[in-house]
Amino acid sequence: MSRVRFEPSGITVESNSDGEHLSDILERAGISLEKVCGGRGKCGRCRIVVRDGSVPVTDKDKELIPQEDLAQGMRLACVIRVHSDMVLEIPKESERNEQVILEDAYVQTKLSPVVSNFILKVPAPSLHYQVGDLERLRTVSSQRLRVEIRMPLGTLRKLPNLLSASEQIRLVSRGGEILDVTSANGNEMFGVAVDIGTTTVVVYLMDLVGGECVAVESKMNPQITHGDDVISRITFAMRNPDGTTILQTQISQCIDELIGECCASAGVDKEKVYEIVAVGNTAMHHLFFGLDTSHLGRSPFVPVVADAVEVKSHELGINIGEEAYVYTLPNVAGFVGADHIGVLLACRLWESDETRMAIDIGTNGEISVGNTSGVASTSCAAGPALEGANIRFGMRAATGAIDHLSIADDFEVSYTTISKGKPRGLCGSAVVDAISELFRVGVIDPNGRIRKGLVSPRIRIANGESQFVIAIEQETATGEAVTITQKDVSEVQCAKAAMYAGATILMEDRGVTQDDLDLILLAGAFGNYISPKSAIGLGIFPEVPLSKVKQIGNAAGSGAKIALLNQKARDEATKLAREIRFVELAARPEFQERFFQALYIPHQNQSLFPEVMSKVVESNKVDRPA
Amino acid sequence: MSRVRFEPSGITVESNSDGEHLSDILERAGISLEKVCGGRGKCGRCRIVVRDGSVPVTDKDKELIPQEDLAQGMRLACVIRVHSDMVLEIPKESERNEQVILEDAYVQTKLSPVVSNFILKVPAPSLHYQVGDLERLRTVSSQRLRVEIRMPLGTLRKLPNLLSASEQIRLVSRGGEILDVTSANGNEMFGVAVDIGTTTVVVYLMDLVGGECVAVESKMNPQITHGDDVISRITFAMRNPDGTTILQTQISQCIDELIGECCASAGVDKEKVYEIVAVGNTAMHHLFFGLDTSHLGRSPFVPVVADAVEVKSHELGINIGEEAYVYTLPNVAGFVGADHIGVLLACRLWESDETRMAIDIGTNGEISVGNTSGVASTSCAAGPALEGANIRFGMRAATGAIDHLSIADDFEVSYTTISKGKPRGLCGSAVVDAISELFRVGVIDPNGRIRKGLVSPRIRIANGESQFVIAIEQETATGEAVTITQKDVSEVQCAKAAMYAGATILMEDRGVTQDDLDLILLAGAFGNYISPKSAIGLGIFPEVPLSKVKQIGNAAGSGAKIALLNQKARDEATKLAREIRFVELAARPEFQERFFQALYIPHQNQSLFPEVMSKVVESNKVDRPA
Repeated sequence: MSRVRFEPSGITVESNSDGEHLSDILERAGISLEKVCGGRGKCGRCRIVVRDGSVPVTDKDKELIPQEDLAQGMRLACVIRVHSDMVLEIPKESERNEQVILEDAYVQTKLSPVVSNFILKVPAPSLHYQVGDLERLRTVSSQRLRVEIRMPLGTLRKLPNLLSASEQIRLVSRGGEILDVTSANGNEMFGVAVDIGTTTVVVYLMDLVGGECVAVESKMNPQITHGDDVISRITFAMRNPDGTTILQTQISQCIDELIGECCASAGVDKEKVYEIVAVGNTAMHHLFFGLDTSHLGRSPFVPVVADAVEVKSHELGINIGEEAYVYTLPNVAGFVGADHIGVLLACRLWESDETRMAIDIGTNGEISVGNTSGVASTSCAAGPALEGANIRFGMRAATGAIDHLSIADDFEVSYTTISKGKPRGLCGSAVVDAISELFRVGVIDPNGRIRKGLVSPRIRIANGESQFVIAIEQETATGEAVTITQKDVSEVQCAKAAMYAGATILMEDRGVTQDDLDLILLAGAFGNYISPKSAIGLGIFPEVPLSKVKQIGNAAGSGAKIALLNQKARDEATKLAREIRFVELAARPEFQERFFQALYIPHQNQSLFPEVMSKVVESNKVDRPA
Repeated sequence: MSRVRFEPSGITVESNSDGEHLSDILERAGISLEKVCGGRGKCGRCRIVVRDGSVPVTDKDKELIPQEDLAQGMRLACVIRVHSDMVLEIPKESERNEQVILEDAYVQTKLSPVVSNFILKVPAPSLHYQVGDLERLRTVSSQRLRVEIRMPLGTLRKLPNLLSASEQIRLVSRGGEILDVTSANGNEMFGVAVDIGTTTVVVYLMDLVGGECVAVESKMNPQITHGDDVISRITFAMRNPDGTTILQTQISQCIDELIGECCASAGVDKEKVYEIVAVGNTAMHHLFFGLDTSHLGRSPFVPVVADAVEVKSHELGINIGEEAYVYTLPNVAGFVGADHIGVLLACRLWESDETRMAIDIGTNGEISVGNTSGVASTSCAAGPALEGANIRFGMRAATGAIDHLSIADDFEVSYTTISKGKPRGLCGSAVVDAISELFRVGVIDPNGRIRKGLVSPRIRIANGESQFVIAIEQETATGEAVTITQKDVSEVQCAKAAMYAGATILMEDRGVTQDDLDLILLAGAFGNYISPKSAIGLGIFPEVPLSKVKQIGNAAGSGAKIALLNQKARDEATKLAREIRFVELAARPEFQERFFQALYIPHQNQSLFPEVMSKVVESNKVDRPA
């Protein structure tokens, strides 16, 4: 058999048979070359340089490679068959620049994960070469890969059986630490991106060889049994001696189960998952690691750790590859955590000349404003109302949830439901639609009160509280009317006022006016589902033309995927987290005033929302701020 | 408060009060200076150099330090009180060269363990210094200790509570990895040296601040339920699907319990044990880590790993400091493992011009022969007979065990027992005495047969087997006579023949004759207890004058202690393990012949044992080899 060594990586792979295609050897070495033509010797992109060994010039070489380059040893890789030892150089321009398109077209990244595959041939021992298994492997990897490998116990335990079965083995390496050894036939490597939301946990199973997402699963965050929002979970952790441990175990089990479901649906062996990248707000991040959260919620709002953290997955009770790692993106401060760094990795605010605002609407909302001159971020305790929680008929986006609706001037309601089921309740986007519409048609006044004296079968008083009927008894799955109550409206007002106040303080901090905003990026599952028109109509964020609002999906999750697929993105994230200006709203005396102004629908100062106000009934228009 | 920085280490410590004694600050910094006088300003050994800051010259300085050195800033550390910031240099010659004398005077080492203590002051966060706990600590340790710290999860979880209680904390560092954080008051650090014998496991609890051994406990190796010797354990591991795991769990639990007992008896918190150094033969080593042992016992006798291994203690199921490590010395090959490297660390054969033989007699015996020109080692499967196992009345060295005996020409027996109890059985040293004496007085012939036709009440036949009565019925604790049987003699002959054959093949390999041997070092609990005269009389190793035999105690355990107390010894051990010439007896065609010759007592060629033969009865002397 012949040996092919690739420069500058130093990777060496043996041929399996005389005359084997170089392309097969390249694949075993984990090297991808450009081949627009698909390896048919037509595009001339897969050029390599023969540094040692004899590779005859073919007709295709002559056709596509200039004479002087041929003389220097340049050849087309796709036509080479290997008959003898050789050393080949891979020029930078021939390396395939793998662009991975995540499901949202806004995001793409180069495939260069932190874990990689190597095939090595380890000589057998003999009475004249009485050298331990690990030491023989170390010698070969140091000579051929130029890597000083580190072998953790879990991998070491697998080594002797593999080496006695075959001299050729595969290493899964993470910066020299060997996470797995397998037979040379396999090349499976998977990773998991996790978005730990306060309410919902989403797990993406990614193929690290191809870059595709092969499965997605999500679940309610089980910590919700100990509180809907970040503050109530921190309180639970502080008041119970085992509180932090309980919450840590809950979230780890949830992630472990979701990974199991992803692997089952994609037919992937859980043992082949070698890396998890997780994002979440600072509290979710700390609870995932079992870190004390008591200082997060009080001045000076300092996390235990802000830098990126990596630990072995088994330390957190997650059972994937035995020596696999969990990596989290860095936190900023307060509750602006790894999830928002994920959002920023996905929208790259710091690279744009345009001034952009990225909003992740959630139980804890994070907002950033920035451009090439800098980025500022804040977090707002919006609570879960905008997502449909704490709402009388609020429900998850499941069958029968009303997801969008409009209300005519005669108060008649048109709505759509998920999976076209009979209505059971309202998901968050419908709640935002409803209140925005109820204000537009004058059922709700700028203070958020359901007006007295309106005569309509849809306006009722039950249990002493005014309600507006979205779906009447006869229409619903339960036989009970689906309504919006006065209390629902108040919950939503508080939530949207916190978001709006945060956004405007951040804009003031960066010296940005409403007119300066070139783009508003809505991140998060909710941000993706909400109607931007209704969101502006309610006053969740400043009014801009609808063309300037872009919904970018679960950008926090996309950021986690990017950091999973491309290790350099981790350095970018670390740099970004250090350079971001964090604005702590609790330390801002003007916050309270901004909040009270924003409790109005859409705002106490209606002139900030000219387009919204042009559409509302006359009775809701006021001349000047109250 | 003032800040004192020490060069060249860069350690910086703050004073606790104005005018604090520098000696107290030095102690907090973990720096020991020479002070023969006990710090009374009399010996002049604790010289330091003031590089920055003002330290007035005292009368004692003038008395003990030459004028030109005073002008260079040299002062006596013991008289300095700290009133302002200063930078002090610690000259090499002032550093205390802590010699630790292990219980055996043969061994001493410098106290310089791999874990060390640092006290650091970490500034509190504020709204203007909103920096995470870990990041503030990193900044300080990088500035003051010039160390980039790594903080594992277990330690990180403790950090916030400590930092909120006090700005001054203590770090327990292992090459930059922070194994523990505690309040600045504590300085306790303990380590454990473990000798994993095939039969007996010994645990030494060592104080890493003072260097003393504070507790020792030992137990039977629980793996013994799956076989007495190395080969039967390997066979068990191969034949049972969970065999390796079962043996791994047994030994880890045993060590965990022994550490618990040591900690209980010494009043030490198990959480303050930060490092374990373990030694054992290659099979014991592999089973401790749960590594495959199937290749150890067959050609080419290659271990899974020969180099030193370190893993977290929790990976092995040992519950000490949460982030503590287990470190094992390197293996050589075959069954010459970390335990024998421990023996060599303790006797330092490679540093001596004299030719020395180190013998660790055990179920698996290891032998080395060497001097400055090189060291060769081998292992012999002696079996447990020399330790009293597989012997009819063999027992452990417990109350009532006969430990030494002599036999008069009229076959009357004098013996001593442990704790002066009534005899219950024979421990290994008494078995060796007995057979050596029985040969000397002519009860046993050179073939090892109990002679027929001798008339004595002590010579009996029971169950068709000849026996010699060591203690008659009336003397013993059980009312049953304690005897040596014909089968016992045969077991011991096989064991000693293996040791002797190994020793002579090794000598031949090094070109060393019996007369060249300057010293024979007997290591191991058994080697320490055995009578050298009886051992030579039986022919366990070559005859040398008794003055050339030295018993050095549990040298494998001493080697483990050395590697625990002095990190440089680890590099020496690694170098040694690579340079040792390993002699594989199983690959030596002459082994069988040597073994058969050595089955005779003391040897087929009696002229090799002139001193022994001069004492034996005429009937046992033969003129020439049979």
